[in-house]
Amino acid sequence: MPDQTQPTALDLPMVDPLPQATRKYFDICQDKLGMVPNVLRAYAFDIDKLNAFTALYNDVMLADSGLSKLEREMIAVVVSSINRCWYCQVAHGAAVRQYSGDPKLGEALVMNYRVADLTPRQRAMLDFAALVTTASATVEEPDRQRLRDAGFSDRDIFDIASTAGLYAMSNRVASATGMQPNEDYHAAHR
Amino acid sequence: MPDQTQPTALDLPMVDPLPQATRKYFDICQDKLGMVPNVLRAYAFDIDKLNAFTALYNDVMLADSGLSKLEREMIAVVVSSINRCWYCQVAHGAAVRQYSGDPKLGEALVMNYRVADLTPRQRAMLDFAALVTTASATVEEPDRQRLRDAGFSDRDIFDIASTAGLYAMSNRVASATGMQPNEDYHAAHR
Amino acid sequence: MPDQTQPTALDLPMVDPLPQATRKYFDICQDKLGMVPNVLRAYAFDIDKLNAFTALYNDVMLADSGLSKLEREMIAVVVSSINRCWYCQVAHGAAVRQYSGDPKLGEALVMNYRVADLTPRQRAMLDFAALVTTASATVEEPDRQRLRDAGFSDRDIFDIASTAGLYAMSNRVASATGMQPNEDYHAAHR
Amino acid sequence: MPDQTQPTALDLPMVDPLPQATRKYFDICQDKLGMVPNVLRAYAFDIDKLNAFTALYNDVMLADSGLSKLEREMIAVVVSSINRCWYCQVAHGAAVRQYSGDPKLGEALVMNYRVADLTPRQRAMLDFAALVTTASATVEEPDRQRLRDAGFSDRDIFDIASTAGLYAMSNRVASATGMQPNEDYHAAHR
Amino acid sequence: MPDQTQPTALDLPMVDPLPQATRKYFDICQDKLGMVPNVLRAYAFDIDKLNAFTALYNDVMLADSGLSKLEREMIAVVVSSINRCWYCQVAHGAAVRQYSGDPKLGEALVMNYRVADLTPRQRAMLDFAALVTTASATVEEPDRQRLRDAGFSDRDIFDIASTAGLYAMSNRVASATGMQPNEDYHAAHR
Amino acid sequence: MPDQTQPTALDLPMVDPLPQATRKYFDICQDKLGMVPNVLRAYAFDIDKLNAFTALYNDVMLADSGLSKLEREMIAVVVSSINRCWYCQVAHGAAVRQYSGDPKLGEALVMNYRVADLTPRQRAMLDFAALVTTASATVEEPDRQRLRDAGFSDRDIFDIASTAGLYAMSNRVASATGMQPNEDYHAAHR
Repeated sequence: MPDQTQPTALDLPMVDPLPQATRKYFDICQDKLGMVPNVLRAYAFDIDKLNAFTALYNDVMLADSGLSKLEREMIAVVVSSINRCWYCQVAHGAAVRQYSGDPKLGEALVMNYRVADLTPRQRAMLDFAALVTTASATVEEPDRQRLRDAGFSDRDIFDIASTAGLYAMSNRVASATGMQPNEDYHAAHR
Repeated sequence: MPDQTQPTALDLPMVDPLPQATRKYFDICQDKLGMVPNVLRAYAFDIDKLNAFTALYNDVMLADSGLSKLEREMIAVVVSSINRCWYCQVAHGAAVRQYSGDPKLGEALVMNYRVADLTPRQRAMLDFAALVTTASATVEEPDRQRLRDAGFSDRDIFDIASTAGLYAMSNRVASATGMQPNEDYHAAHR
Repeated sequence: MPDQTQPTALDLPMVDPLPQATRKYFDICQDKLGMVPNVLRAYAFDIDKLNAFTALYNDVMLADSGLSKLEREMIAVVVSSINRCWYCQVAHGAAVRQYSGDPKLGEALVMNYRVADLTPRQRAMLDFAALVTTASATVEEPDRQRLRDAGFSDRDIFDIASTAGLYAMSNRVASATGMQPNEDYHAAHR
Repeated sequence: MPDQTQPTALDLPMVDPLPQATRKYFDICQDKLGMVPNVLRAYAFDIDKLNAFTALYNDVMLADSGLSKLEREMIAVVVSSINRCWYCQVAHGAAVRQYSGDPKLGEALVMNYRVADLTPRQRAMLDFAALVTTASATVEEPDRQRLRDAGFSDRDIFDIASTAGLYAMSNRVASATGMQPNEDYHAAHR
Repeated sequence: MPDQTQPTALDLPMVDPLPQATRKYFDICQDKLGMVPNVLRAYAFDIDKLNAFTALYNDVMLADSGLSKLEREMIAVVVSSINRCWYCQVAHGAAVRQYSGDPKLGEALVMNYRVADLTPRQRAMLDFAALVTTASATVEEPDRQRLRDAGFSDRDIFDIASTAGLYAMSNRVASATGMQPNEDYHAAHR
Repeated sequence: MPDQTQPTALDLPMVDPLPQATRKYFDICQDKLGMVPNVLRAYAFDIDKLNAFTALYNDVMLADSGLSKLEREMIAVVVSSINRCWYCQVAHGAAVRQYSGDPKLGEALVMNYRVADLTPRQRAMLDFAALVTTASATVEEPDRQRLRDAGFSDRDIFDIASTAGLYAMSNRVASATGMQPNEDYHAAHR
């Protein structure tokens, strides 16, 4: 059962009672993650919005892709670090620690991804994600070609762009609404 | 039937043949808009991604909200102007012209929203959207309070944040993939 | 005869009556453009200032040059877009549409010149104009050489610099004084 | 007689021989300033351009105005400092030293105008000029009202804007063409 | 005994053998901290430089002050986060965790200090430190007065300024030389 | 004997009487420089702080190094110009004039170091110092290699970094405390 503290600075209580499908989804989160991530609780004032967000999120982060789940989480952290999003750095920093088994990697991606111990493929991917985050209007063909030269397919380029895009969105929703990360993230996978 | 030019700089052909539900959705677009927006064709290399994107898009832009559809399109244009996204300024500039019947308003929101003839409510909404776009990490309670003082509910604040967030994402996916707007947008609703 | 609305946010009425030479010049504008551009009405509180501005303007934009009039208008729009000047984007966006017969080109230069369909010569010219607009103190010999490599003479380089410079000035005078473009520009040459 | 070194990095020799009116004007400069400012020599490859520039320059900097000549030179230095224009900081820094008799004032305006010993009127004027220089698109009515509150008329506001605008232009022409200040400026009025 | 890996990307081996006083100082570090911080090993190619740095460091961070040691470490982390210094965020993030016993506080100061749970005094102190870090030339009397209003003495203001200044320096030396934090910091005080 | 005006905006009187060693040091300054630099008077409210600062300062600026004293002063001015520190631009601008015998060089480094007449070695050194000043988190191995290619040793790189770092610190302490340069600097070595 999700804890009762307010997930954001907005007074938007969850639908009560939650529909059965939502309750089931939250129970799965509780079982697998040990918590219902506050971002889900934040959207649960409107089940259509919750469902639309989770469908997009799950497609981008979990569906089949040429990018591994770790790579997608690395993009999440680098984008969220540039945008200084409290919620997403905490939650996805924990995910990087979990998937990589390397707490130092999670810390480096939060602090300055340029110092992390990265393969050339990872560095190219994160440089593109950072460029898309800070100056998307300047992206041109040579930037995409650099990814192809690092071994990425056009489909992979789409996935890098949409992962960076997802956090451009989530970072802003989280910061604009004052979203708080669940306490359990902080110590997880250290 | 959608035209055959490539919607982005990536070599990602649409699923062929399209599933029946997608074909039907594209036919509706053709009937109502006179075109299938290229953003839909760009996602149609993977029907799950297309469906996830359209579900989120339709929820944010078309579902019931304290924000009118025009107000949401105004946010779309202001965010896309700050990010200088070619696709979204063209497509949503046309939508502002359509919903408002005021071509000059669309032009002002593209060029510099501060000069547009806005109500205090609209100005507060667009100032918040602009802040979320350029410096989301600095948003704090007084910024949200300013919206409440302008007559917005907490639910409206969520909707402003998620509309601004949607274009933070779409602008980046469009610019990173070299997405081209449909030709018909340029002259529409002038 | 010029219309009577205030061209700027400043209370600076035109000299009344206008000197005969000015009246004649305004009549020519009315005949050829269908309006007296508000920038001229804005300066007409002081005929010496009006004359100094129009002489410089006409020399930069209309005198013989290795740059075509369209190319100079393209620089005008790109600079004004970077500076987000309402007056100049509207007025010179219309001029690009007129000289090029290509409304989409005008829109692209307003929104993000990097997406426009440009020749290498045009792109080099606009990249230099953009650099001069945003970071003139960093211009060094290699930047000028890049223009020579694209086929420009030293005289052309001077003309690119002074066209970019003219709008650095006009954008600021227009924005600082709250100058409003004539209504007729918006729909012209669509 | 002007010295023969090249005033810019462009190969644009002065018209030879200079027309009589230009020669006379340069002789007056030599008599009164002890030099022909290189900016005039830079434009003298085309007498129409030279005349258009000097007419505008003389109107903005020397014509009757609610702003003293020193105040206009102070704006010139602050704008040129923000833009880091070598030519204009040197030439107008010397002019501030000359008109004010206070070398330290010239140095402060070059280095950081906020530390200069300014009257509230001067500070308001320079803050507005700085705003117009760095973010002209954000200028709105309260910014102009702040000048009125500091004692400036609407005509004065126009003059502040056009002085700041003149150096927005001149700084860019000078930096883009690699213009060198005359050697004599450096030691003048110390 | 310090470990033998290179503390920076520069080939600057420590003086060998170390002078007795240095050896003793390093032994104390080893005893009290469980390591010799790499910043000390980085300076130890020149004992005078090491001594000058440690004297300044110890005075700023450890001498008597109206600022507690935790407060000085909080400034260290906020400045280092703005500058994205890998070494200093790691080392001083650990110190904040240690002094505060609150790992979440260390994480918040690294990620976005505005979200941390701060007293008004702490917030005023960190806002000033952030301003000094990003825009020191704009600091004026009202900024200092804001600190006095939050309860700080003029001596405290000096100490805030010099703590922020110390990390402006250390961040740059660390980043410019590629300084690596000791491995033990990462897991410490979680 | 030091003059009695307040060296900063803080009410922090010098220790009175000064310890004998400090008095002697100040007397030497008076003899050799004709003044006690205000930065020393500013720190003299606490002799330990004064000593720590002067020891570091003297090591960085005056100790044996592959960088000449003039080169270190050139870095001081370029960093202080980027940070627009009034005190340090005045004091170290005078030092550049003194060591170089070239007042124009001091002026160019204050105004825009790119226009100064520099050797390739000096340009590489100042470009690195400027990068460390504005974007230290982006420094990577190729930036250091560029210095090695220009003839600098790894030890020299350390010295460039620590000189740039010293002024990152001093600029901020000076600006944050409102430090005023001694009057005598302004006219010195012109």
